[in-house]
Amino acid sequence: MTNPVLVEVLRGEHVESFHRGAWAVVDAAGAVVASGGDIERPIFPRSAVKVLQALPLVACGAADHFGLDDAALALACASHGGEPEHVAVAAQVLAQLGLDERALECGAHWPGFEPAKLALARTGEEPHPLHNNCSGKHAGFACLGCWLAKGQGQEFRGFLSGYVQPDHPVMQTVSQALEAATGFALRDAPMGIDGCSIPTFGIPLRHLALGFARVASGVGLSADHARAAQRLRQAVARQPFMVAGTGRFDTRVMQHFGERVFCKVGAEGVYCAAFPEPGLGVALKMDDGNNARAAEVAMAALIARWVQRDDDDADVLAPLLNPVLSNWRGLRVGALAPYAHFLASASSSK
Amino acid sequence: MTNPVLVEVLRGEHVESFHRGAWAVVDAAGAVVASGGDIERPIFPRSAVKVLQALPLVACGAADHFGLDDAALALACASHGGEPEHVAVAAQVLAQLGLDERALECGAHWPGFEPAKLALARTGEEPHPLHNNCSGKHAGFACLGCWLAKGQGQEFRGFLSGYVQPDHPVMQTVSQALEAATGFALRDAPMGIDGCSIPTFGIPLRHLALGFARVASGVGLSADHARAAQRLRQAVARQPFMVAGTGRFDTRVMQHFGERVFCKVGAEGVYCAAFPEPGLGVALKMDDGNNARAAEVAMAALIARWVQRDDDDADVLAPLLNPVLSNWRGLRVGALAPYAHFLASASSSK
Repeated sequence: MTNPVLVEVLRGEHVESFHRGAWAVVDAAGAVVASGGDIERPIFPRSAVKVLQALPLVACGAADHFGLDDAALALACASHGGEPEHVAVAAQVLAQLGLDERALECGAHWPGFEPAKLALARTGEEPHPLHNNCSGKHAGFACLGCWLAKGQGQEFRGFLSGYVQPDHPVMQTVSQALEAATGFALRDAPMGIDGCSIPTFGIPLRHLALGFARVASGVGLSADHARAAQRLRQAVARQPFMVAGTGRFDTRVMQHFGERVFCKVGAEGVYCAAFPEPGLGVALKMDDGNNARAAEVAMAALIARWVQRDDDDADVLAPLLNPVLSNWRGLRVGALAPYAHFLASASSSK
Repeated sequence: MTNPVLVEVLRGEHVESFHRGAWAVVDAAGAVVASGGDIERPIFPRSAVKVLQALPLVACGAADHFGLDDAALALACASHGGEPEHVAVAAQVLAQLGLDERALECGAHWPGFEPAKLALARTGEEPHPLHNNCSGKHAGFACLGCWLAKGQGQEFRGFLSGYVQPDHPVMQTVSQALEAATGFALRDAPMGIDGCSIPTFGIPLRHLALGFARVASGVGLSADHARAAQRLRQAVARQPFMVAGTGRFDTRVMQHFGERVFCKVGAEGVYCAAFPEPGLGVALKMDDGNNARAAEVAMAALIARWVQRDDDDADVLAPLLNPVLSNWRGLRVGALAPYAHFLASASSSK
């Protein structure tokens, strides 16, 4: 099955490149409201499912016990740019546990937000694990691990060691939440290692969208996971800077839409979203997965179709639907655009 | 026409992403030796045709007159990483003309080579036009412009101003060379503005490959352009660092293959190459064009098929055919690979 073209890249008025992909919009009953392309092939959702992976952190009581606030919970769902505010919140979570960045097993990389990267370089320092875009998620894992260790009467530093391994109690708990939300059995799923060293499981887009419809509505989740989903959506709506950062798609969308949209990018062209008002979940993956540019435009089109209701919404979405490409002298040389008919020609069960 | 899958991206043992594209291998008589996908649709070749754009610089005598050496000529064909050696050579060319970086109209950007970028940031300085990956090409344009001004008895600084505009004598001369080499009329071609502000013309892959078959063999070029092509290929073979930089595909390939391969990456997933031994030219474009990762693997496969002859060649190509993907902790998490049958299933006229 050849997936449809979702996004075109124009230079001047001519198509220079184009991106194919598949997408699904699903309700909490599991009905496919609309879709395009192959939504049954397992794909690695990468960082797009961080909110699902954070459900047990809140549901089990660990987040409340250790005093995680909105910023910390938003950061647990984040792929942040390593800006000083992100680093500070991750450090604070670890400090509340009596830990520091040495507890994190995500590895270090330079901040993704370019000015933060250059500023760090100018200080002469090197990046550490708190700059890793996943440091908030890993701080959340550490928090969950401390809670599990406490429940088992174990010393938490020793217990935490190796928490990124698939068979560690922390990762088992996280994977169970992912399986419960998506309704897809992970035991036989394709498995890979993610950028931050935790396992990533191949899950069909239809199931990922179902997981996000459940996050949107609470329907189909256990009572404690439904409450956790609502709490995490609220936290991100209140602290949208924490989920991404300066100028980033997810931050810009949620700064405006608040709890009306929860959206989250993943590596290799993945996007997932929960739309609470219509009670829908969305998942998409660009075939080429090369970076986020096309996935963002496709996600903007899906938000415009299922969430947008007034001119203010449209004004916020306009530059995300048609991002301008400028060259090194600042000249406008092109733009991205959703492929004209990708929503109109979608298959639908309704 | 849906272009075929050329490259797969594996995470663990599972296909995470894949890249479609089109490619053509053409001889100097214009025969399509092998191809895949749509090779008649005009595509923007971007920086992949810098060697064609440098032909008049050498052919008209400007390069010799102003004393451009191998490094300067290789840099004129380059998309370099902004390493200190690249910056120094570009500065030297301008100095030989009595100019400095203020003459360049390419704009400034941070060095593409990460350590050079961080090193520059640590000094507290900002990038200038010599760091632009196209600064060598633009220094070549300045050199050509000074020569043309001299021929017309004009003051060269005033003459140079606006040299990136399509109707400027410098750009007219460069575009005529591009048209002559590819045999594709640019008057009616799609036109866009490139990253460095010069025009880029939409040219079918079949014609781009023909242009590089002519560069490979000299056949079909005017005598002075044929000599210029040979001189430029020699210069890059002698100074392969200048054409790209540390760790880069083009540098690695030409450090080993020397004059047996001239290959050059372009933005948005374009690659062109000249293979002098079999007298072939190659051009490819990945549909998604998102970055160079897939185009490089496809180019490695084409070099392996049409140039490789012994174990040393194979050893150099092996890591380029199957680049390893590592995560932030240095764990091997995946690899890229040419799609198994993209060469075997190619259409061929021979």
